Amino acid sequence: MSNIHDKAYELSSALRDSEEFQQLKELHDEVEQDEVAKRMLDNFRNVQLELQQKQMQGEQPSEEEITQAQKQFEMVQQHEVISKLMQQEQQLSTVISDLNKIITEPLEELYGVPEENNGQQ
Amino acid sequence: MSNIHDKAYELSSALRDSEEFQQLKELHDEVEQDEVAKRMLDNFRNVQLELQQKQMQGEQPSEEEITQAQKQFEMVQQHEVISKLMQQEQQLSTVISDLNKIITEPLEELYGVPEENNGQQ
Ligand SMILES: [Ca+2]
Ligand SMILES: [Ca+2]
Repeated sequence: MSNIHDKAYELSSALRDSEEFQQLKELHDEVEQDEVAKRMLDNFRNVQLELQQKQMQGEQPSEEEITQAQKQFEMVQQHEVISKLMQQEQQLSTVISDLNKIITEPLEELYGVPEENNGQQ
Repeated sequence: MSNIHDKAYELSSALRDSEEFQQLKELHDEVEQDEVAKRMLDNFRNVQLELQQKQMQGEQPSEEEITQAQKQFEMVQQHEVISKLMQQEQQLSTVISDLNKIITEPLEELYGVPEENNGQQ
């Protein structure tokens, strides 16, 4: 068990030192220091969160909410730093997902094919 | 990036060698080799899966389905090997969750308090 934890801390440290994380941190700090950009991104994330919560509760968002979300998405897409930050977040999310696949390989070998292949067998 | 992958493979290997995983594998193989136990567990998992899918779609399971699920849960609980396997699966799930917390610490430092503390701040 202690060896697992040691290896997890080593991986965590490698992730922190990685180019991918360092770039994310720079972009995140850049947005945090720009009051207008920060407010724009906060608003966008709040609207996204509200839409997700409605979807999870099986509720239909109103036309106004959808229009508002689309407008805010276009705004953040046009903001250079925010759009870079969102791309970098997407990249980190892919990295983490790849790491999880590698780490849980022993369990996948035990229980069968990986999730994404299930329907095709 | 390659260092992250190397560290993830080392962690995966440590997980495979761990007492926790080896015990899970032994119990899993024991059930696989016991036709009656295997059928009992498969039935239980299928009923659980159906109930989960209904819940996710916002549907209410029927009284019969709930009763059936409870009966099957009692059956697998009383089966020594299956109940041990399910306990071991729970333990592995806790291990994986702990590992994920360690690995994603850099991201939590960037984005704020961990999920479980959010409401309390
Ligand atoms: Ca199997
Ligand atoms: Ca922060």
